[in-house]
Amino acid sequence: MTIPFAGDTVDRAGERRTQPEWIEAAVASPEARGIVVGRSGVLLDGVAEAASDPWAPEQRTGSLGLARIEPGERAHVADPVAFLGVGADGAPLFALEAGDEDRLTDLRLAASVLSPEDAGLAAYAAALRNWHRSHRFCSRCGEPTRSGEAGHVRVCANGHQVHPRTDPVVIMLVVDNAADRVLLGRKADWPQRRYSALAGFVEPGETLEAAVAREVLEESGVTVTGTRYMASQPWPFPASLMLGFEADYAGGEARAADAELESVRWFSREELATAAGEGHDSPILLPPRLAIARHLIDGWLGARASQIKPRDR
Amino acid sequence: MTIPFAGDTVDRAGERRTQPEWIEAAVASPEARGIVVGRSGVLLDGVAEAASDPWAPEQRTGSLGLARIEPGERAHVADPVAFLGVGADGAPLFALEAGDEDRLTDLRLAASVLSPEDAGLAAYAAALRNWHRSHRFCSRCGEPTRSGEAGHVRVCANGHQVHPRTDPVVIMLVVDNAADRVLLGRKADWPQRRYSALAGFVEPGETLEAAVAREVLEESGVTVTGTRYMASQPWPFPASLMLGFEADYAGGEARAADAELESVRWFSREELATAAGEGHDSPILLPPRLAIARHLIDGWLGARASQIKPRDR
Repeated sequence: MTIPFAGDTVDRAGERRTQPEWIEAAVASPEARGIVVGRSGVLLDGVAEAASDPWAPEQRTGSLGLARIEPGERAHVADPVAFLGVGADGAPLFALEAGDEDRLTDLRLAASVLSPEDAGLAAYAAALRNWHRSHRFCSRCGEPTRSGEAGHVRVCANGHQVHPRTDPVVIMLVVDNAADRVLLGRKADWPQRRYSALAGFVEPGETLEAAVAREVLEESGVTVTGTRYMASQPWPFPASLMLGFEADYAGGEARAADAELESVRWFSREELATAAGEGHDSPILLPPRLAIARHLIDGWLGARASQIKPRDR
Repeated sequence: MTIPFAGDTVDRAGERRTQPEWIEAAVASPEARGIVVGRSGVLLDGVAEAASDPWAPEQRTGSLGLARIEPGERAHVADPVAFLGVGADGAPLFALEAGDEDRLTDLRLAASVLSPEDAGLAAYAAALRNWHRSHRFCSRCGEPTRSGEAGHVRVCANGHQVHPRTDPVVIMLVVDNAADRVLLGRKADWPQRRYSALAGFVEPGETLEAAVAREVLEESGVTVTGTRYMASQPWPFPASLMLGFEADYAGGEARAADAELESVRWFSREELATAAGEGHDSPILLPPRLAIARHLIDGWLGARASQIKPRDR
């Protein structure tokens, strides 16, 4: 099973970031291409209309609108956009700030029509772009920052450096093996009937396993054991890294325990299998296929309840 | 096996952060205690001298220098220090900025004498303290920020919020099962003869598995497969979260492939077992016991080479 935004076939060629002459030549070369990203999403190549229904089956018929980098655009390449790496065809790839937001497609929708590789590139470009836009000033001294290392660091006049920020988030399926059921919750502002896996940001000084236990207890009043890592997914909205886990139910009465969720309840294998098969006519809406939460649910549905184990990679 | 800094028995009581009256009462209560942290480390309770040799066997005889919060210190509690949670004894715990750096003990050394629980608390307090000190200005607009939610958010005059930053780092033991050996590297500025696991920051738009493969290839020229998550460890120097993996050697000639490391080579089971047993008289120095790299190495040494599997939690 493919996890959207996890495609990553670009060679990041990190050593080039500190070779300004190589970067300058790469930008100027006719092979250079830009992934065009903005506040609203990413530029697709003429199939923006197809990417309108997150419930549609996977189509994978779209492609990124890779832009040639015109001489007049080179200023945009320096800042706030960045060198992404070298594509499979040898082309140097850059993130380009969009001039026209109206032409962009929402990243989540784009992921439903792009190849995993292109969706991964789009996520990478969007994550870097979002970071540049939110770090124009130094958090240590308040001075303006400028982009360095081909877009992979920002530096202020006092020499303070900051690297791109990625926020680790744990997302977990709590499994009650004895009753063959899993725990899901819903936020009040989600589409009606939507349920998904519990999740939350990892806090300072916390292991992933402690974060899983804390978030499950906070959100559902339930304790867990046997926490096991399953998969990860970049989630550039704006800068998260989703870390997917399964954990075994240990005790407690499941309920919406804090203000985060409006409902938390157990779902049987039959309920979820029905929902997974029927899409948006189901009495329950599962998370869309692009979400790692759906990957966790589909993985549980595919496994025998008696022999759940970490995903074989 | 215990991973230092991973002890986490405090109830973070996150819902209290948005209850300023509860926080105010907690600070004023005679039960309130402060973990005193500064640039140089953490305040211990009179055993600072014992914590001087990272090679010494685990002693676990020290304790945190938990400070009463005097009325005059309350100003320090509001900003830049933070509510950590409620201890096992019911005492509200806060991070307190140290007035006297000279009394502090380096956090890594402290971890060798503290209980896992206290070392975890110290790491939590230090991570939050480091974040406050490096985020006094808004990275979006350059305005000064102030602490909110009892030290778990910073907000500027324009209403931009920023939450504590934690940088995910992958650290991995590359295992060559056929030859029963593992790949380690050393940085030029490390103590002589020290070797450790390869490691590097996760980049934007990257899965953990992709980050492991990229970093190993960049640093050693080697490709890997079968990446498996083992354990995680908060590493507040200043704000990392170490994500420990094993990965199987797939191909390539191991060498120091970039400027990051001065040497990369394979180590046999015998070499590592000798080094693990002899401490700093060994011809090779393994990472100290407080590092997750050592946990990965010891785990591999303890496992049968033919049946390596994720740590059973």
